[in-house]
Amino acid sequence: MTEKIAPRVPRGMRDILPEKNILRQYVIGQIRQVFEAFGFEPLETPALELWETLMGKYGPEAEKLIYEVQHRGGKERLALRYDLSVPLARVVAQYPHLTKPFRRYQIAPVWRAERPQKGRYREFYQCDADIVGSASMLADAEVIHLIYEVLQRLGFRAFTIRINHRKLITGLGEFSGVPQDLLGGLYRAVDKWERIGPEGVREELLKAQVPREAAERLLSLLQETHGPSRAVLQALRTQMAGYPIALEGIAQLEELIGYLEALEVPEAAYRVDVSMVRGLEYYTGPVYETTVEEPRIGSITGGGRYDGLVGLFSEQSLPATGTTLGIERIIDVMEELQMYPPSLKGTVVQVLVARFGEGTLPAALRLARDLRRAGWPTELSYDEARVGDQIRYALKKGIPFVAILGPDEVSSGSVALRNLGTQEQVAVPQEEVVQRLEAWQAARTSA
Amino acid sequence: MTEKIAPRVPRGMRDILPEKNILRQYVIGQIRQVFEAFGFEPLETPALELWETLMGKYGPEAEKLIYEVQHRGGKERLALRYDLSVPLARVVAQYPHLTKPFRRYQIAPVWRAERPQKGRYREFYQCDADIVGSASMLADAEVIHLIYEVLQRLGFRAFTIRINHRKLITGLGEFSGVPQDLLGGLYRAVDKWERIGPEGVREELLKAQVPREAAERLLSLLQETHGPSRAVLQALRTQMAGYPIALEGIAQLEELIGYLEALEVPEAAYRVDVSMVRGLEYYTGPVYETTVEEPRIGSITGGGRYDGLVGLFSEQSLPATGTTLGIERIIDVMEELQMYPPSLKGTVVQVLVARFGEGTLPAALRLARDLRRAGWPTELSYDEARVGDQIRYALKKGIPFVAILGPDEVSSGSVALRNLGTQEQVAVPQEEVVQRLEAWQAARTSA
Repeated sequence: MTEKIAPRVPRGMRDILPEKNILRQYVIGQIRQVFEAFGFEPLETPALELWETLMGKYGPEAEKLIYEVQHRGGKERLALRYDLSVPLARVVAQYPHLTKPFRRYQIAPVWRAERPQKGRYREFYQCDADIVGSASMLADAEVIHLIYEVLQRLGFRAFTIRINHRKLITGLGEFSGVPQDLLGGLYRAVDKWERIGPEGVREELLKAQVPREAAERLLSLLQETHGPSRAVLQALRTQMAGYPIALEGIAQLEELIGYLEALEVPEAAYRVDVSMVRGLEYYTGPVYETTVEEPRIGSITGGGRYDGLVGLFSEQSLPATGTTLGIERIIDVMEELQMYPPSLKGTVVQVLVARFGEGTLPAALRLARDLRRAGWPTELSYDEARVGDQIRYALKKGIPFVAILGPDEVSSGSVALRNLGTQEQVAVPQEEVVQRLEAWQAARTSA
Repeated sequence: MTEKIAPRVPRGMRDILPEKNILRQYVIGQIRQVFEAFGFEPLETPALELWETLMGKYGPEAEKLIYEVQHRGGKERLALRYDLSVPLARVVAQYPHLTKPFRRYQIAPVWRAERPQKGRYREFYQCDADIVGSASMLADAEVIHLIYEVLQRLGFRAFTIRINHRKLITGLGEFSGVPQDLLGGLYRAVDKWERIGPEGVREELLKAQVPREAAERLLSLLQETHGPSRAVLQALRTQMAGYPIALEGIAQLEELIGYLEALEVPEAAYRVDVSMVRGLEYYTGPVYETTVEEPRIGSITGGGRYDGLVGLFSEQSLPATGTTLGIERIIDVMEELQMYPPSLKGTVVQVLVARFGEGTLPAALRLARDLRRAGWPTELSYDEARVGDQIRYALKKGIPFVAILGPDEVSSGSVALRNLGTQEQVAVPQEEVVQRLEAWQAARTSA
C-alpha cells in the first residue's frame, strides 16, 4: 500500500455508528409497526430521480440544494431525491393500476445540500405516510389518528396536533380585508402567534404594513378562537359567516373533529388553530402539525391534504393527504428525554459466552449456537483471556449477561451465568440457561 | 398546471411497489434477526462518499461505473457508494475507539452504472456481515455458520458453501509450475471446474497456453480433491507437501472445518473446493461462496478474509473477514421457488372493516382502532358501498378477513366476521374478534 487515504465523510454527512443506530432502528421499527397496523404499505423508490421529475414541484428555488448526479456516458440528467412526496406522486401517476385509496409509507434518506449546522445533516431520513385517492375527511382523520398512535407508542405524552384548513387560511386573508400583496407578510405574522403571542403578532403585522384597523380585527378574531376545538369552530362559524370559503373549511374541520371524537382521541392531544399557517402553495385542505411542549424544538410532524401534486405527472389528478414524521427530530428528542427502553444501550449483544481452560471451546461454540437459535443475540469470546478480562470486556461493551464455561461446567453440563447488572451469579444446567436469561431480562426491562 | 412531466424512473432503476416490497422486507427482517443473534451490530454510512475514498480500492477500472455527484457551490468531489466494504474499512480507520472485534452488518443500496439487463439494476441492495479485528479462524467459522443459519431460516435446503483458501490457491499455482504470466488464465480455467467439468477445464487450460504436462498434473490434483472436506484436506496435505504456502492454508482450513464440526453444521452444507477461485487481489485467507442447486443462478453469497483493506485508510491495518449475501438473487430465487409464507401475499392489510347502514361509522372507527392497537393491520372502508362491493375490494386486494358492521351488529355489540379463504362467516361479540382472527390466521399460515 502506498499513500494512505484520509478516512472522512463528505461535508454535512455522518456515519451512524451502532450505538446510535440501535436506537434509530428501534424508532423506525416501532413506527413501521403502527404504519402497517393502519394498513399503510411499504413503498420503495430509487434514490435517483430524473432532474425534470424533481423540478416539477420544487422549481428553481430548490435547485441549488439538489445534488446532481452523472456517470460516464450517461445521457440522462439525474438527481438525488429531495423528499418522498414527489416520488410518491410520480409512482401514483406511473402505475395507474394501484388500488385506490393507495396507502403507502416510506422511511428513507433524502439529500439536500443545505448549510450544515449542529444536528442538521445533508443526508437525513424522512418518514412519510400518505393516502392517495380519497377526498374523504375520514382519510385526514386516520392520518391524524396515526400521528397520535405513533407518538403514544414512542412514549410521547405532552404533545399537541395543531389543525387548520387551507380554506380557513384563505378566509382569514379575506376577513382581514388587506390587499393581496400584503397577505404574505400577514400570514407570516399570524403564524408566529404560538411563539410570540398577541403583542408580538401585533408588532409584526404593523411592521408588515398591515393597516392598524385590519390588524386589530385579526387579533381579536385570533384571541376569540383559542380554546377547545369545538368552541373554536363555533366561534369561527359566527365570525366568518360572511366568507363562504372559510365556511367550507370549517365544515370539513367539523367533520374531521367528529371522527377524532368517535375515535376517542383525547381532546388535549389536538387543537384547531387558525393561526397555524403552512405550505400555502402546496396544501388544499386540512393541514396539521405537531408540537411537543418540552423541549422546545418546533414541530415533529407536518402534513395535510394536497390535492394537486399527482396532477404534475398525470392528466387525472387525485386527492391526497398525509404526514411526514420528523424522524430525525423525534430521535433527538427521545435521546434528550431518555425515552428509550434501557435494554437498548450500546450493543445488540445480550450474552457473552466466556470460557477458560482446555477443551471448553467446542461446548462454548454449541452454547453460543443454541442461544442464537433461541433468539438471544450472543457473542462468543475468541480469546482465551482470563475470565475476569472477558467480563470486563462485556462491561465495557454494555453486554448485560455472561455465560461462563470452564472445565467443571463442561463436564457437568452446566453453565455459570452472571448478571452484570445485579452481580448475581448462578450455576444452571445448560437446558435452563434460556429460561434464566428470560427471567433476568424481564426483571431488567421492567426495572 | 401546465405541461405534464412524464412519470418515469432513470434508466436501470426501479420502483419497488408494495406487493414486492413486502416480500423484500420479510427477507431483510429475517436476515437482520439472524445477524443480530450472532452479535453483529447495525452500521449506517452515508450514500455519498468522497471520490478519493472509493478510488482506493476500485481504481480506474471501476471509475466508469461510479455515479459522480455534485451540488451547486460544492467543493468536494463526491460519489455514490459502490459497495459496503470500502465504507466499512473507512469507518474502522476513522473511529479507532470502536471495540474490537468489531462485528457490523449493513443492508443498504449501492449504485453501479452497469449496462441494465433483465433482473439487474443500477441501484441494488447489498447485505454484508463482517468481523474486523480478529485473525482467528473462529471468526471465519462464525461467518460460515452465519451463512448456514441465514439460509436455513429463509428456507433454503439444497445449498453448498464452498470453501477455499487464498494460500492454497497460490500453492496451486506453484504446484502447476507454470510461469507467473500464465497464472491468470490458469486460475480462470480452474474456476470453471464446477460448471464445465474436467474435460472442459483441460480444454480451457490448453487454450490459456498452459503446457499439457502442467495441465494434466493440475487435473489429476483436482480430481483427487473432490469429496468430503476432511478427505480433501488429507489428500491436499499429501499432494502439496512440498509447498509451504499451501500447507499454511490447509492448516487454517483444518482449524476452520474443526469449528464447523463442533457447531454441528451438517457436512452436506459445505465443501472444501480447491477449484473455487475468487478475488485474488483482495482476499488473504479463507474464501467462501454459496451455490444453490436449483435454480442454477450462480452464487448467492460470497466472502472471505481480507486482511489488507483497512490498511488503505490507516497505518495500522486490521485483520477482517466477512460475507456478502446476494440479497437480490436470494429474493429472486425465493420468488421463483415460492418460498414465502402464504400470509405475505399482496398487502400488509389483514382485516377490512366494512359497514353498511346509518350510524355505523363511529362503531367502525372504534373497531378499526381496537384491531390496530391489538397489532392487526386493518383498513377501514371509506365508502358507504354495498357490502358485496367491499368484500370484492378485499378479495381484489388480497385482504384475508372482513369484519362487517351493520345496524344489527352495532346495536348488539357484535361483528360479522368473514374468512375470505374458507368462506366461513360467523357473528362474534366484539371482545372476541381478535381471538377469532388469531385462530383463523393460525389455520391459514399452517395450511
